[in-house]
Amino acid sequence: MSRAPSERTQVHRHPERGVYDADLIHRILDEALICHVSWMDPEGGPRILPTIHARVGDTLYLHGSRAARPWKTLRDGADVCVAATIVDGLVLARSAFNHSMNYRSVVVFGRAREVTEPEEMERAATAITSHVAPGRETEARMPTEHEFRQTLLLAVPLDEASAKVRTGPPKDDPPDIELPIWAGVLPLALAHGTPEPAPDLIGDLPTPGYVTGYRRPDLTG
Amino acid sequence: MSRAPSERTQVHRHPERGVYDADLIHRILDEALICHVSWMDPEGGPRILPTIHARVGDTLYLHGSRAARPWKTLRDGADVCVAATIVDGLVLARSAFNHSMNYRSVVVFGRAREVTEPEEMERAATAITSHVAPGRETEARMPTEHEFRQTLLLAVPLDEASAKVRTGPPKDDPPDIELPIWAGVLPLALAHGTPEPAPDLIGDLPTPGYVTGYRRPDLTG
Repeated sequence: MSRAPSERTQVHRHPERGVYDADLIHRILDEALICHVSWMDPEGGPRILPTIHARVGDTLYLHGSRAARPWKTLRDGADVCVAATIVDGLVLARSAFNHSMNYRSVVVFGRAREVTEPEEMERAATAITSHVAPGRETEARMPTEHEFRQTLLLAVPLDEASAKVRTGPPKDDPPDIELPIWAGVLPLALAHGTPEPAPDLIGDLPTPGYVTGYRRPDLTG
Repeated sequence: MSRAPSERTQVHRHPERGVYDADLIHRILDEALICHVSWMDPEGGPRILPTIHARVGDTLYLHGSRAARPWKTLRDGADVCVAATIVDGLVLARSAFNHSMNYRSVVVFGRAREVTEPEEMERAATAITSHVAPGRETEARMPTEHEFRQTLLLAVPLDEASAKVRTGPPKDDPPDIELPIWAGVLPLALAHGTPEPAPDLIGDLPTPGYVTGYRRPDLTG
């Protein structure tokens, strides 16, 4: 879609950066490892929680402990705003004023629905495991009924979402371009180090390829 | 400090991960490149904005365009919640249920005050430029009066902040440790690629060392 689905998803500041295309929104949500969820706590004002998410079709899944208070508030149908942000680079202009970032971000508005149907619970749990490390869902021991009972799975529809994207070099005002100041972009990305096997790892299990060759979706190209 | 400064900063879920030490809170804020700011929009519910920040002493500075609606709401003294999150690694347990992340995060509650005093405005602008790329503040052309007039600088006191930190290997339940499933930690960090000079760069300006050798504060350690 090329138009904002609602007033609050409309990108007002730098409208040229606003994108309402579902494919792009999905790709950003898939690549972003974590998101930040915000909601209004009736007693404590606005709140934010960084958390893992996963997308299946037009649904964003979140999960948390059933014992945690924030998740109870969200389960009860509070309005939520979810942001997923990928930083792609520092944009170093000659002027401090024109410094910027290259980034891809998504903001989702909506209300969470508790997932209670066993098949959807399995699907969401698998998607979350796969989101963290694609391939892990084929190896990890999936949740038991007892574990599912401790977990709150929430679904947020993606019908009120927008993306904002900045790419490219710095844009300095003409007089500044003459200044003897280096300007350009420093690309940034999430990189991984050497896997650290658990100290209690049994036997001589090899490190899986999805760990040694870990890359977030968009980077696998 | 070893105690939460208020009820809403208290870490309830995994209380062993809660830290209320100002030094650690400062270091996390300094290393995190961006933060997410949330507030309640009286008409549109909870909102989140990813943005750049900088810390000077016990004050967190944010900045935005004076023309942007969110910043007007924040300037008017709305309650805000700011989260800065650094992902340090994937924690891959044998069971999907015990998967986790290693991370360091800070949450700040408070109200923003508009910065209007010229010296503090300079200090905040310098800190924000330096936060993005330490060293850049000595080279970039700093804001003119006209540019300052377009910029809204906000200060949030850090007296109501907490950190949450997870480190170390996965913690599986004893029966799962016997499973023939690889488990461990995959360290993650923000890494930079090759600097891309601006296409309109004048002359033969060398790429500064703070760009070629870019690292977030904690990593230079």
